[in-house]
Amino acid sequence: MKLQVAIDRVSLGEAITLAHKLDGIADVIEFGTSLVKDYGLLMIKENPLNLKQAKLLLDLKTIDEGPYEFERGFEAHGDILTVMAGSSVDTISKVYEITEQHQKEMLIDLLAVGDDKVNQIANFANAIYGLHHSRDAAGHFDAVSASADFHEKFPAIKRIAVAGGIDLEQAEGLAKQGVVDTVIVGSKIIGTVDPVQAAKEFKEAMTLS
Amino acid sequence: MKLQVAIDRVSLGEAITLAHKLDGIADVIEFGTSLVKDYGLLMIKENPLNLKQAKLLLDLKTIDEGPYEFERGFEAHGDILTVMAGSSVDTISKVYEITEQHQKEMLIDLLAVGDDKVNQIANFANAIYGLHHSRDAAGHFDAVSASADFHEKFPAIKRIAVAGGIDLEQAEGLAKQGVVDTVIVGSKIIGTVDPVQAAKEFKEAMTLS
Repeated sequence: MKLQVAIDRVSLGEAITLAHKLDGIADVIEFGTSLVKDYGLLMIKENPLNLKQAKLLLDLKTIDEGPYEFERGFEAHGDILTVMAGSSVDTISKVYEITEQHQKEMLIDLLAVGDDKVNQIANFANAIYGLHHSRDAAGHFDAVSASADFHEKFPAIKRIAVAGGIDLEQAEGLAKQGVVDTVIVGSKIIGTVDPVQAAKEFKEAMTLS
Repeated sequence: MKLQVAIDRVSLGEAITLAHKLDGIADVIEFGTSLVKDYGLLMIKENPLNLKQAKLLLDLKTIDEGPYEFERGFEAHGDILTVMAGSSVDTISKVYEITEQHQKEMLIDLLAVGDDKVNQIANFANAIYGLHHSRDAAGHFDAVSASADFHEKFPAIKRIAVAGGIDLEQAEGLAKQGVVDTVIVGSKIIGTVDPVQAAKEFKEAMTLS
């Protein structure tokens, strides 16, 4: 199971420093939507990370104008780009095609969509499907049971990522469960005093299980 | 009826020049999502437009982390910000509250949502509701009949904007119809040899009717 660390709401300089420190501990470094919208893809393009081991995910949250945004995202060195499941099926199909052409990856963010929509877009074999609890939503999110439910409903979907306040215990539970491909952790790593140590603890919790 | 001109897929410098030329002809200048994601809100903040008459809409297309994005958007001199109808109701409620506090405006982009979702979020009295045909979708969009249908289904919604390949004839039809508050035009103005002249023609078509 892979660890994706989401970097958000910091300066681009801090984000770059953090990304280099976490390269090789995290399997995927995410530059969150706040970095994309605060600094823009052109600035991210001009400051290439040149990660040694980790992949770079740019959380574009594309919802329209898919081809334009994905071309820009790959130019900005993204290895994995995100599209919202709430987009039109046309948008998702188009960005999938572009992603395949570039031999890169895409994550379909399932934020705030129902099962009907998931069924309509469940056929993108190489896509990662991201279970995502809104940051703005109240209430606790149980990543382990949410992943189990999703897997039961959509057994054909092979690559699942999950995000939403995941802590060490949940990461360990997800690793034991074996359904999820990637665990996405944000503030529980980036918001700590020592993000490198916190990331190592997550990797450990995910590996021991 | 107001004319909103959407500026997209040009350099920030060109966008600023165009915005100044269109100020006073267009009632609202939109900096499209491509400008936000290419250049970032910090860069837009550092280059204030100081429009004399028009309002500035920043097409954030917020879908999560609403409070963060809206605070950034208002700091970047946006008078009107956009949130996706596909967001969680929590996100929309939170950005509405922030918008009211700032005494600014918000547009709820109805891209790719069904009537059920519109019903859930139809109660934000001061919000503008944007009918929006995806740029990535195939097929013709009839703005006049789409607006009539929407008004019939949701008579309580008073402020409607409409976007999606609108031409002069449709703009005139919308003005005659009297249901829509704002017509959003992009390439039919910005993609012409003389955007100022094109914008004047739209205003004229909308006024004569």
